[in-house]
Amino acid sequence: MDSTQLSVTCIAPVNIAVIKYWGKRNESLILPINDSLSVTLSTADLCSKTKIIADAKFTDNVMILNGKEENFENERIQRCVKEIKARAAELGSCPKELLEWKIHIESENNFPTAAGLASSASGYACLVYSLAQLYDLKKQEISDIARMGSGSACRSIYGGFVQWQKGIQLDGKDSIAFQVAPASHWPDLHVLILVVNDSKKKIGSTSGMARSVVTSELIKYRVEKCVPQRIHSMTQAIKDRDFSKFAEVTMKDSNQFHAICLDTFPPCVYMNDVSHEIVNYIHEFNRTEGETKVAYTFDAGPNACLYLLEKNVKRVLSFVNHIFPNDNQKSAEYVRGIPVEYESEDVNEFQNYPQYEKNTLKYIIHTKVGEGPSRVD
Amino acid sequence: MDSTQLSVTCIAPVNIAVIKYWGKRNESLILPINDSLSVTLSTADLCSKTKIIADAKFTDNVMILNGKEENFENERIQRCVKEIKARAAELGSCPKELLEWKIHIESENNFPTAAGLASSASGYACLVYSLAQLYDLKKQEISDIARMGSGSACRSIYGGFVQWQKGIQLDGKDSIAFQVAPASHWPDLHVLILVVNDSKKKIGSTSGMARSVVTSELIKYRVEKCVPQRIHSMTQAIKDRDFSKFAEVTMKDSNQFHAICLDTFPPCVYMNDVSHEIVNYIHEFNRTEGETKVAYTFDAGPNACLYLLEKNVKRVLSFVNHIFPNDNQKSAEYVRGIPVEYESEDVNEFQNYPQYEKNTLKYIIHTKVGEGPSRVD
Repeated sequence: MDSTQLSVTCIAPVNIAVIKYWGKRNESLILPINDSLSVTLSTADLCSKTKIIADAKFTDNVMILNGKEENFENERIQRCVKEIKARAAELGSCPKELLEWKIHIESENNFPTAAGLASSASGYACLVYSLAQLYDLKKQEISDIARMGSGSACRSIYGGFVQWQKGIQLDGKDSIAFQVAPASHWPDLHVLILVVNDSKKKIGSTSGMARSVVTSELIKYRVEKCVPQRIHSMTQAIKDRDFSKFAEVTMKDSNQFHAICLDTFPPCVYMNDVSHEIVNYIHEFNRTEGETKVAYTFDAGPNACLYLLEKNVKRVLSFVNHIFPNDNQKSAEYVRGIPVEYESEDVNEFQNYPQYEKNTLKYIIHTKVGEGPSRVD
Repeated sequence: MDSTQLSVTCIAPVNIAVIKYWGKRNESLILPINDSLSVTLSTADLCSKTKIIADAKFTDNVMILNGKEENFENERIQRCVKEIKARAAELGSCPKELLEWKIHIESENNFPTAAGLASSASGYACLVYSLAQLYDLKKQEISDIARMGSGSACRSIYGGFVQWQKGIQLDGKDSIAFQVAPASHWPDLHVLILVVNDSKKKIGSTSGMARSVVTSELIKYRVEKCVPQRIHSMTQAIKDRDFSKFAEVTMKDSNQFHAICLDTFPPCVYMNDVSHEIVNYIHEFNRTEGETKVAYTFDAGPNACLYLLEKNVKRVLSFVNHIFPNDNQKSAEYVRGIPVEYESEDVNEFQNYPQYEKNTLKYIIHTKVGEGPSRVD
């Protein structure tokens, strides 16, 4: 270690909720009105990467995000940095003067923003995890601090299956994430993200959920009655590796989340006609296959995230490729992430399903459940 | 009167709910799980017309709907005919032998089925009203019988603003419609129906609502908590002719109905991307106008029904025509129903709103609140 400079580089994963987070009880601390539960995705295919250099000679704090300088005074960044430093100071985990050095942060995502995937979860998880490495807070709970950057970031602090408990304390100290099961518990849980071509402006999730809390009447019932039961069923499904149950609760909760958005006034609409077609096709597919082989879930955008078992990837992908033909169908640029070996053509197998117009999907990402953040330098 | 033949011809109106009916507690009697409230539309623009001939010499019952013979044994038709005859027999309202004569029914709608407007409400209301005329049940409650043909038909038995009370009796005797206010109470309440070009197959409302009752969790809360409050607010808004309140409750209830459909498993989706764009545009329009001038509501299909005051029709229609340009923009074939006089062109007024592609709407129907069924022969 150069005595006047310290550097860490870390990666952190994306997570996709199966029980959705929607609605805050405290806007500034980012405290949710309900528990949520997510699957952490493999950093091999999707991740944020953050390098932090602390240097005694730096005169300014700097934040560069995907090659562009960000305002370091951004409230959420400030809160994360301040909270991590306070924790380090309190515990004396690192030399005091290190906490006074300015830092240069460079962060990037290995997936395009255009993918419509929430990069804030992996981004803030990576920022907070990297800061914790820098200030030697390695064994400390930091999901509550990641949460202050972006709510769902707290779930990206852990790998595998992660629950964010809403907590009941006013200061949010108990609004933290914990691992329900590690990735190794169910390693054959795979994911296909169908990135839909869409140009529509949409309501940001922060303002969307604020509007839902104020105007939706149904959200009260969801929060009080539906989510607790679903968290329970989902946890059990994960423990039992019961894909059919996992899929059912995932699909129902995605639908209910979008129902709440529609019950908001004015309504927030995130799914589009293509999203709804995907939903129809998946129900149809599961029915004709005679078992639930695939589940959909949609966040605050039109892209579908499909959960499925590894053994069914090839078949489901053939189905998706039939429905949504693409000029680059089998190129690695169209189907990204974990490579899929295509067997012989079974072109006619899905011929009863009408096809959508070509290139309706931008591309597909094939990935799987994965580990939490890690240091890579 | 030819002593061996009797004939009646009647018309009955369409109604559009502002508090939606969705979900039955008894499938065969068609008893709903919540009250609903609708506006009856003028028969001058939209109606069903039914001619019934009873003849001692007829050997068969015949039903011709829009020029095509229907199966008279159809359960719903049978139930309506049987119930009306039973009531007439019980009350002795007409000669006994008349009840034994076979009948020929010819019914047609003056609007195309392709309009996506529920023709079953006006159709069954017209059938039951015509039968009641034939058997001289002129002062009797018949909305409960119309209800057995098609739930919302009971609301088409009355003009103006009509509530269908769900009732609590098992036999459905108290599940009837009543007039909240006559059409004359608020005669300047107009309606624009935007008929959207759409080819998608959709789930019929009978099976959709059955599925919602079984699978939606949110529907319980809607039925128990939301609808009773909304019926109260809506009734008050109508009594006060408070358009702004009327509009708000109408839009919120339309949104909530579609939220319930989305919370159904598998979900029922009736609105499409164009429907949602209409919603966005209307919120935007009301905001920039500085007052709520127009309200949307959507039934089990993509078409928008807009409520607005007569004085705002021209302006709203100019707005709609800007957003959705059409090759026949100002022809009577495109804007049907009550004629609209266009003033000088104010082309630039809405230029900040992006335009949709041409001919997205099939046509527009301009109508207004109107009277209940009547005899026209």
